[in-house]
Amino acid sequence: MKKKAVILLSGGLDSATCLAIARAQNFDCYALSFDYGQKQLAELHAAKNIANYLGAIQHKIVRVGLDSLGGSALTDDTIQIPDYQKSTDIPVTYVPARNTVFISIALGWAEVLSASDIFVGANAIDYSGYPDCRPDYFQAMENVANLATKAGRAGMKFNIHTPLMQMNKSDIIREGIKLGLDYAMTVSCYRANANGEACGHCDSCTFRKKGFMEAQMADPTRYVLN
Amino acid sequence: MKKKAVILLSGGLDSATCLAIARAQNFDCYALSFDYGQKQLAELHAAKNIANYLGAIQHKIVRVGLDSLGGSALTDDTIQIPDYQKSTDIPVTYVPARNTVFISIALGWAEVLSASDIFVGANAIDYSGYPDCRPDYFQAMENVANLATKAGRAGMKFNIHTPLMQMNKSDIIREGIKLGLDYAMTVSCYRANANGEACGHCDSCTFRKKGFMEAQMADPTRYVLN
Repeated sequence: MKKKAVILLSGGLDSATCLAIARAQNFDCYALSFDYGQKQLAELHAAKNIANYLGAIQHKIVRVGLDSLGGSALTDDTIQIPDYQKSTDIPVTYVPARNTVFISIALGWAEVLSASDIFVGANAIDYSGYPDCRPDYFQAMENVANLATKAGRAGMKFNIHTPLMQMNKSDIIREGIKLGLDYAMTVSCYRANANGEACGHCDSCTFRKKGFMEAQMADPTRYVLN
Repeated sequence: MKKKAVILLSGGLDSATCLAIARAQNFDCYALSFDYGQKQLAELHAAKNIANYLGAIQHKIVRVGLDSLGGSALTDDTIQIPDYQKSTDIPVTYVPARNTVFISIALGWAEVLSASDIFVGANAIDYSGYPDCRPDYFQAMENVANLATKAGRAGMKFNIHTPLMQMNKSDIIREGIKLGLDYAMTVSCYRANANGEACGHCDSCTFRKKGFMEAQMADPTRYVLN
């Protein structure tokens, strides 16, 4: 019997590759997306299609009202999503505690499924400076998973896999293409329109574009006319 | 200027006492409740009134779809909430990863508010055997809070306060009454009806009833006629 894993799937390039990797490692994949009040919902449509394309056993979209907390350009109408700017500061697109909330809910689902494996497409290189995308953070979350759950207390050892952690964007793209992923299906842009067309200028578009360039691969992203 | 704290407030006896304690410790209190698909919603009405009664600066109810994961008698219509049974097993009312999800969202709000203090009314004695109510778990979550956030990475030290941890139910009740709490406003019952009337027979009712008895205090709980 194949082992089950819960995979966080935003619908972007990284998480889609992460799902392809989990599948290649022979897990039965349970894909999990969140309707958390993000301005662009095109990524949820993308997530649904990617989960189906990559043969996920199930795809769940869970509602969590992070928008009611405010504090991020991705969820708060009063904060504009900026164009890319070279900076080492944590950007305004940071959503306070987002990965912790998402992994916690993944943990709940994993426990219900009797799964001990959770995949997160976080990346320490092109990570936009987010604090909850770093290796020490994931170790701390793994410790929480083992202490927080009935399963963990009974001896199950939870693993939070971050297979993209040490890869740069072009490595990720090469890996995904090798595994049969079609990146035209993914939506990375923070300002994507309802059709999933990308702005080409936000942080996320900039890293993605650079990735295809460095991988010397054709960029299948659909951009808005402007 | 007073320090801000986020207080998890279910509307039950423990969390209401916890809010009263945070207030007595001179924090500006931001009360946080969750609409997570629990069968009984009377506790949310109770939470709103308690937050107001105890002078919380703000009370937020955040939606999080834990019911879509299933696996708990509190959220899953196919699992019945049982009468109290003396047992050391973790009961079917356990909601996988619930405290981790709730504390994560509290952490997000704390970061938006620039607050470093989070209060949780967890209790290691009358804790129903839940794994995410034990001291080692809260230490692990505190570590996550410091690593997960922009504020934590910048040097803020988050504190997760669990002032009820070593108290039994009768200690908690005495403390709350000393601080002016009116327990008639609280709803603990897992099967409370829409008017907030308690069944008197579930785990939560049993611990609460015993608490008032041992504290030698009148029990102001409103029970259903049956």
